[in-house]
Amino acid sequence: MSQLRVESFTISLDGFGAGPRQSIDNPLGVGGTALHGWAFATRTFQKAVFGGEGGATEGADEDFAARGFRNIGAWILGRNMFGPVRGPWPDESWRGWWGENPVYHVPVFVLTHHARAPLVMEGGTTFHFVTDGIASALAQARAAAGGKDVRLGGGVQTIQQYLRERLVDEMHIAIAPVLLGLGERLFDGVDLPALGYACTQHVASPLATHVVFTRK
Amino acid sequence: MSQLRVESFTISLDGFGAGPRQSIDNPLGVGGTALHGWAFATRTFQKAVFGGEGGATEGADEDFAARGFRNIGAWILGRNMFGPVRGPWPDESWRGWWGENPVYHVPVFVLTHHARAPLVMEGGTTFHFVTDGIASALAQARAAAGGKDVRLGGGVQTIQQYLRERLVDEMHIAIAPVLLGLGERLFDGVDLPALGYACTQHVASPLATHVVFTRK
Repeated sequence: MSQLRVESFTISLDGFGAGPRQSIDNPLGVGGTALHGWAFATRTFQKAVFGGEGGATEGADEDFAARGFRNIGAWILGRNMFGPVRGPWPDESWRGWWGENPVYHVPVFVLTHHARAPLVMEGGTTFHFVTDGIASALAQARAAAGGKDVRLGGGVQTIQQYLRERLVDEMHIAIAPVLLGLGERLFDGVDLPALGYACTQHVASPLATHVVFTRK
Repeated sequence: MSQLRVESFTISLDGFGAGPRQSIDNPLGVGGTALHGWAFATRTFQKAVFGGEGGATEGADEDFAARGFRNIGAWILGRNMFGPVRGPWPDESWRGWWGENPVYHVPVFVLTHHARAPLVMEGGTTFHFVTDGIASALAQARAAAGGKDVRLGGGVQTIQQYLRERLVDEMHIAIAPVLLGLGERLFDGVDLPALGYACTQHVASPLATHVVFTRK
């Protein structure tokens, strides 16, 4: 059965999934780059984002970064993961944060209230804009994934919506040794034990603590 | 200068400092024992609490447990750390959670609204009940500590009060690979970066991630 997986979603020690004051010039928010230091240090990330051969080829950080791309047939993103948080929803000239050849290379389903025709990018990524809710996005992503898993990219509110419906099968969270102070907390208003989730894996590197939550 | 230090205070992955439904029979709350698994596994803890010689004698967990008792001349506790959370404030027959020879062996200042004469225990521990606030408790603890540091034991609300006044000099927090779902969150309503705190140390064991926050 195709799983819905959160992978490599990183929070600060104080529980925030992005730095404050996100903007088109600083999509990770203040302090957000430090949040993702563990991922930047991996070969998987360097290759996927920059096309380079740098970064660690082993260790817990690389292991978790790499597993996040394995057996993924489609992605689901909240609207802020596709376009700028502040300001009006980007007009149709906006083609995502990642240039013409995005990191996904599979169909990506963007949750939004603004209908838009599918956007075909280079390298196998097509953005589909879903306006009829999270269950519909999941059904469409599962159909597109061809038996592979669906990766839920974020952000915080999108993950929370799927968790509350117990639709997430497995969730890998990295906790970075960073304080952000402000932002959206992943665990606010989400009682994971009550929803049937437990921590089933716990591995740390010098740059992050990796935990995996699995639904009973 | 005598420092005010939080040591070995443990939170869950979802940020809670104790399990839900704490009671006189289960002072750590549901799941609270799992929260403190890393500490139970150390020689320092086994010796301090049970007088035994079991537990790990090296490793990050033992290092942090041991440093928590070094150079401590007095403690400060919130009332719930001295007596049961639920029900009326214990009457004067209540002598703390730890029996006649508590783990402290130095003066302990308990924040409370209920005046009570000092309670002299075996082994050097005397409980002093402070009714005029956190600054007074700190001044009294510093005076009693004879140049050594003061350890702030908790709980969550007490630590938050001292953090908001920037009175904590250093704070060691352990994050246990446990979900609690409900309780009091250490970082709720406390913007540590805005208060001048940063994460200055990050070490993990299989049982916990240890972080140290230092005030600028």
